[in-house]
Amino acid sequence: MSKQENTSKVRVFALGGLGETGKNMYVVEVNDEMIVLDAGQMIPEDDMLGVDIVIADISYLVQNQERVKGIILSHGHAEHCGALPYVLKKLQVPVYGTKLTMGLIEDDLKTHHLLKKTEIKIVSPGDRVKIGNVKAEFFRVSHSIPDCIGVAIDTPQGYVVYTGDFKFDQTPADRKFADTGRMTEYGKKGVLCLLSDSTNAELPGTTPSEKVTEPGIKAVFREALGRVIVSTPSSNVYRIQQAMDAARETNRKVAVVGEAMKKVINISKRLGYLRVPKNLMINVDELANHKGEKIAVLTAGSQGEPTSALHRMAKGTDRQLSIMPKDTVIISAIPTPGKEKSIGRVVDFLYKVGAEVVHSDKDVNVSGHASQEELMLMLNLMKPRHFVPVQGEFRMQIAHGNLAQTTGVHPERVHLLQNGEVLQLEEKNATKSTKVPAGNVLVDGLGIGDVGNIVLRDRRLLSKDGILVVVVTLNKKANTFVSGPDIISRGFVYVRESEELLDEAKQKVTETLRECMNDNVNEWSSLKSNVRDVLSRYLFDQTKRRPMILPIIMEV
Amino acid sequence: MSKQENTSKVRVFALGGLGETGKNMYVVEVNDEMIVLDAGQMIPEDDMLGVDIVIADISYLVQNQERVKGIILSHGHAEHCGALPYVLKKLQVPVYGTKLTMGLIEDDLKTHHLLKKTEIKIVSPGDRVKIGNVKAEFFRVSHSIPDCIGVAIDTPQGYVVYTGDFKFDQTPADRKFADTGRMTEYGKKGVLCLLSDSTNAELPGTTPSEKVTEPGIKAVFREALGRVIVSTPSSNVYRIQQAMDAARETNRKVAVVGEAMKKVINISKRLGYLRVPKNLMINVDELANHKGEKIAVLTAGSQGEPTSALHRMAKGTDRQLSIMPKDTVIISAIPTPGKEKSIGRVVDFLYKVGAEVVHSDKDVNVSGHASQEELMLMLNLMKPRHFVPVQGEFRMQIAHGNLAQTTGVHPERVHLLQNGEVLQLEEKNATKSTKVPAGNVLVDGLGIGDVGNIVLRDRRLLSKDGILVVVVTLNKKANTFVSGPDIISRGFVYVRESEELLDEAKQKVTETLRECMNDNVNEWSSLKSNVRDVLSRYLFDQTKRRPMILPIIMEV
Repeated sequence: MSKQENTSKVRVFALGGLGETGKNMYVVEVNDEMIVLDAGQMIPEDDMLGVDIVIADISYLVQNQERVKGIILSHGHAEHCGALPYVLKKLQVPVYGTKLTMGLIEDDLKTHHLLKKTEIKIVSPGDRVKIGNVKAEFFRVSHSIPDCIGVAIDTPQGYVVYTGDFKFDQTPADRKFADTGRMTEYGKKGVLCLLSDSTNAELPGTTPSEKVTEPGIKAVFREALGRVIVSTPSSNVYRIQQAMDAARETNRKVAVVGEAMKKVINISKRLGYLRVPKNLMINVDELANHKGEKIAVLTAGSQGEPTSALHRMAKGTDRQLSIMPKDTVIISAIPTPGKEKSIGRVVDFLYKVGAEVVHSDKDVNVSGHASQEELMLMLNLMKPRHFVPVQGEFRMQIAHGNLAQTTGVHPERVHLLQNGEVLQLEEKNATKSTKVPAGNVLVDGLGIGDVGNIVLRDRRLLSKDGILVVVVTLNKKANTFVSGPDIISRGFVYVRESEELLDEAKQKVTETLRECMNDNVNEWSSLKSNVRDVLSRYLFDQTKRRPMILPIIMEV
Repeated sequence: MSKQENTSKVRVFALGGLGETGKNMYVVEVNDEMIVLDAGQMIPEDDMLGVDIVIADISYLVQNQERVKGIILSHGHAEHCGALPYVLKKLQVPVYGTKLTMGLIEDDLKTHHLLKKTEIKIVSPGDRVKIGNVKAEFFRVSHSIPDCIGVAIDTPQGYVVYTGDFKFDQTPADRKFADTGRMTEYGKKGVLCLLSDSTNAELPGTTPSEKVTEPGIKAVFREALGRVIVSTPSSNVYRIQQAMDAARETNRKVAVVGEAMKKVINISKRLGYLRVPKNLMINVDELANHKGEKIAVLTAGSQGEPTSALHRMAKGTDRQLSIMPKDTVIISAIPTPGKEKSIGRVVDFLYKVGAEVVHSDKDVNVSGHASQEELMLMLNLMKPRHFVPVQGEFRMQIAHGNLAQTTGVHPERVHLLQNGEVLQLEEKNATKSTKVPAGNVLVDGLGIGDVGNIVLRDRRLLSKDGILVVVVTLNKKANTFVSGPDIISRGFVYVRESEELLDEAKQKVTETLRECMNDNVNEWSSLKSNVRDVLSRYLFDQTKRRPMILPIIMEV
């Protein structure tokens, strides 16, 4: 790479991200060749009713697929690689990632019949590769899952560096350190633009090491009088290792509940990222053969997800396992914003059963994302000319941008990227002149993008006050009712206790239709809208509710 | 009162409270006479779709109304008095509360045509009253609204004390101190049972005074280059006063957006709880006549409520006001659990517009509830024989119970009350032998309690995948279709892009009905369930969605 004059074109943009800013898929374009950084899935917002996951709009990539040279995955979390199958269905390009990352996504690709046709490139930190004509180098970072990398893309104007999710862990559980040496070197050679993780940019200080939870978890295992149940994100291999080690030390057998966690344990064991002591694991149905104080259970559900085994175990509705008095439950996870209440609900259930609960406790919990001091360290190592805060919510990116300024990045070279905004980088200045198609695509069942505003608006209406279907068969020639009107409601009122209301409503429909027929108003649309108006007004008067009203008028 | 032998019957129970424990309406029964403590409304849980508010089941009170002697309101927050109109409709009993509390609820009672027929008893801290044959005394506590009281009910076995919401504020904004003297005296005379606020029982230390936000808010007003918008709960009279004082000092005019806050300001000004400087207030439509740095705006919406003016102002959809670059927005409220995300969303909108935002900042925010040190102080002053943690979630009540034990309350005399569990108190021991009808009643529009499990289940189904209505008119004698089948869907798929799917579905319905008719299956219920099954299977295969299916078969 060189800093001398050049005419290279370097562009950076985000393709998707809920909220006000891109965050789960970035693209770096060097002289018309595109490298995709991560392909994450997002959890739908509360008002995206019935939606399973949200992914980025990749129509720009599809339209320009000959220019897309590869996808690089920074690590194995779903927020960073969960959209991969959806992308690969439309775009056949090589995928780069470390051994564990690729191991974790293989299953997903198999399910989508994509494994065989996908060119998978397993890379290691320190590797340099050429993707198209673009040179990229991977460097190790620390996070809450092993085998995480950042990427330095070598452009004629300097490096474009993407950190992925990271923190500076000075006592990493696997003794593999973030490669500050390489980072320093990028900084020396010249970083044109740094894209850095903003998740904890509002938190002062330094995020503790993954290691800090080790004594906390061991202490709980030692002191627990009965079973210990550890709930942690299924991908947190470090935490799983700590729980297994604690179980071994306290002579407990370990059972795992939940397919996702079983999968992660199998893969990371097979690939050498998890040491599972011999004779430690038992099946859930063997638990009954052991005393409580000889048992530990590993499970997910640490965000209080109502569909999780932990939630069911707490409520006593799980087929395999119920929480009992004397059980000790460790909830080892940082609450995702918005999940505080559902976690609280599970904790309440657990207490109600009589279990001990260790939660929101610094001894068993630690974030995987860098706090302000570490973010400034990254900025100081890289000394970027331009800075793009990535990940996190808009306000966190704002906070990160402010931090960058305190480390000396010029305010005009801090760029917040909304979805689709293209940052065109030159050494001296940068412009945001163009936009590419971008945004969020909702996945519901097999449908990708077919649930849009109209469907969501209807679901919201239906969820609030239900629906009322009015059916009537008319003989318009004879001006008579052949059958009905009948009213069927769902989600509106409890029908058995509202007979009077619904009878009266039926009466209103009959009157309205009679009047229309007498006045010779007999276009479908007028009949329907009259029925809808009269009924809507009547029901609102009587109940102050506004159910969706669906008049169906059949003709014979 | 006396401690000598007696045969009095004292019972304590809770009638409602979301989650695992009673928390918004308590009843103390002394020798068969009942005193109701607070009548609060609760915010519905996320899965109570379309429900407006939740109140306690008062059927036990209604069944025994001759024994209900009065309702005491501890303070003017909706969580403590918002259910009053619903209670008074069924139960005509005197209501006791301080001047501000009663002032705030009068409007509500007027709306419900209850003001004239309700016996309102305005009391002051220190007052002793006889309610039926029961003697009660009110004592001042501090909280985030003026004029808060606790209640000491004098029973032959000792006092039953209800703290209401409180903290120990050593520098109260109105210089009115919590009456620790009276509390000490109750303790000396003998407290049979203490019911104390558990909201912050998980937080170590001491909650700061309401006063601490004064310099923080003033500093923001001084430094803001443009308009200052202060968002705070509409009932927080202290915070409103601070904002008004800060506005006066910085020569800003103040406009109020939102009816609820206007109402609180008018009432508290009229009753002497708020000093509004002369010439301070202007109307929103006068804002344009003043420069930004001469303007402050007060509004609610501090929990990020999507229906609030602040939310609309941030998104630029409010009729009256839009947030602009250079505006400074102070969000002065402690996030309610579960609201962190909606607050974050508003903050993001505000940043996106280019406003300065001061939020989740200790300088502009303070809780109104006692932390652990204060809770222990209350326990030590009262030295209760029995202890019932009230308010807050189950886990907070558990934490509060643990605190009580550290102050010397015997573990067997700490009682967590679930809704309807009756704690029968004797000086030495207490029993939880009986239950009274209790629980939560959902209010939706004018309906009180008519939205139950069936309606909610339907709303949940509808919200996830929408509805599909199948209509067909049959001539069963002739075994022919007279009209249809027609399919109408809402909230399922975007119809214009799913014509093929819906045509095929129609085909399936026709085939199914034909087969049934050929096989002489022609009971309504079989026809319908066949249609439902076939369609449900087909649609799930094609879309992996499960819309509600409503077959309507008409006959001519």
